[in-house]
Amino acid sequence: MNQQGQNEQYLTDLYQNWSDRMTANPNMTIEDFRSLFDEWHQPTLEPENVCYKSESIAGIEGIWALPQGADRKKVILYTHGGGFAVGSASSHRKLAGHLAKALGVTAFVVDYKRAPEHVFPSQVNEVTAVYQALLKQGFEAKNLLTAGDSAGGNLAISTVLNLKKNNIELPGAVIAFSPWLDMEHLGETLVTNDATDALITTDLLKGMSSMFLGESGNPADPLANPLKADFTGFPRLYINAGSIESLVDNATRLNDLAKNQGVDVTLSVVDNMQHVFPCLAGHSKVADAEIAQIAQWYNNALAVAV
Amino acid sequence: MNQQGQNEQYLTDLYQNWSDRMTANPNMTIEDFRSLFDEWHQPTLEPENVCYKSESIAGIEGIWALPQGADRKKVILYTHGGGFAVGSASSHRKLAGHLAKALGVTAFVVDYKRAPEHVFPSQVNEVTAVYQALLKQGFEAKNLLTAGDSAGGNLAISTVLNLKKNNIELPGAVIAFSPWLDMEHLGETLVTNDATDALITTDLLKGMSSMFLGESGNPADPLANPLKADFTGFPRLYINAGSIESLVDNATRLNDLAKNQGVDVTLSVVDNMQHVFPCLAGHSKVADAEIAQIAQWYNNALAVAV
Repeated sequence: MNQQGQNEQYLTDLYQNWSDRMTANPNMTIEDFRSLFDEWHQPTLEPENVCYKSESIAGIEGIWALPQGADRKKVILYTHGGGFAVGSASSHRKLAGHLAKALGVTAFVVDYKRAPEHVFPSQVNEVTAVYQALLKQGFEAKNLLTAGDSAGGNLAISTVLNLKKNNIELPGAVIAFSPWLDMEHLGETLVTNDATDALITTDLLKGMSSMFLGESGNPADPLANPLKADFTGFPRLYINAGSIESLVDNATRLNDLAKNQGVDVTLSVVDNMQHVFPCLAGHSKVADAEIAQIAQWYNNALAVAV
Repeated sequence: MNQQGQNEQYLTDLYQNWSDRMTANPNMTIEDFRSLFDEWHQPTLEPENVCYKSESIAGIEGIWALPQGADRKKVILYTHGGGFAVGSASSHRKLAGHLAKALGVTAFVVDYKRAPEHVFPSQVNEVTAVYQALLKQGFEAKNLLTAGDSAGGNLAISTVLNLKKNNIELPGAVIAFSPWLDMEHLGETLVTNDATDALITTDLLKGMSSMFLGESGNPADPLANPLKADFTGFPRLYINAGSIESLVDNATRLNDLAKNQGVDVTLSVVDNMQHVFPCLAGHSKVADAEIAQIAQWYNNALAVAV
């Protein structure tokens, strides 16, 4: 953590503050957790020249991020993090705006209904429904991307696995920031990075997975835990994570699994960075460089495709 | 409250939820209060065709709301509510965006430093410094407005009183949504509307005023309590409030005071509405009609001035 610059340290401090407040208040309600985690927007600067629009698609609320000059035929279906239980389209609006702007596309940030009121597979089904509604509106599958962070990184992947299972045309690309995939909590870095990760603990994840899976969900179900999935035919995939976060081996295990099954995967593990560090966009050169790299990855593939 | 429509009821429910949570958790820290009150953005729909920009002016952070097609020479200096202690530029970004868009101008939402870490007159001085910096940047005073809600409505007024005191050219107009002015808590409607106001209680206000005034602030200082001020020469003023809120007589007393001192005042008290109901913009016809009426008030004066 000593290697972080001042602006990167901001995210560590925010996470440490959340951790301290959760420890100080063991009786926090789900509403309190949601208020706390909605501070996730704070590390992200307002991206300039991006407008927003609230809309309901397939009955599911969300926020469009519409960068000026973006290709309106191309859409990132963005799913926010927060253990399937907290976080919102509002907390991730600016991050999606930065990503969409860099890629030259639009983004729809989905306010999927959260756990524990709604349990697996409700979230996967809702994001799938939004995707299908976009196809029905005339968007071409190749012009759609799924992207998300943490639990939303899981959804960006599990939604595509669900599309594959149902023989629905797949999106052109998938992006996962610090995806949380392992619902069995078997990752080694949960232990080895416990001291350096300012937010994620095994206990926190166990609380979240138990809300997400409810009484009947199976932590080894491939749509809940994509580390158990078959990735044959999966779209090109960009995975990122911070080297000091507890969930970094969710990213590396996903990379190995997908690569072994022939997927075109790019893995970017950035030194000394925390969980979902791209949310520092606009405040941190490291976050901005990562997003610029993703834009290059996205646009180079377009050039090849043409 | 029975007269409220479903969309207006949303704000009552949100305020009631906050009240219940504050009661349930008497040990809430100032950080917890800030998380809670940052939910104030939730009733407001994203205004379409408005972009944002984070900027620091005179060393004070804030967010520009930049409606497409707005007159970039005209600026609302917007000060958010939250008892001088909570709320933020983020929680009020969308409300300022709706107002700016309706008026055809831009808005800068000030993240003034909050109580209790910073006490009176820090907030008035910071907003005054931003105003002076805008003049220095070349904006004409007549093209500036101050506007705000609740404690921010107080600041929209006290900043202008401070400018007047210091012989600085005054803005063209002032808008106050449900202003909280009376730091002595003498208003009758604190009692008579206690049952219908879902958020504001005398105890809550006493906690806020004590943080704001600190140990040495005087609750009868005209810059803390504009009901004690001389309004001679004050710009044209639009005041709004909901009829069922505890602070409605802050609005009516301000109206009487300013009118008696020759100010061009418009007062709009809307039946059955809660504190700062314009934050329902985009979700409520009542809020939208109020903002449209303010735009008409603003633009009619422009026509007269020409």
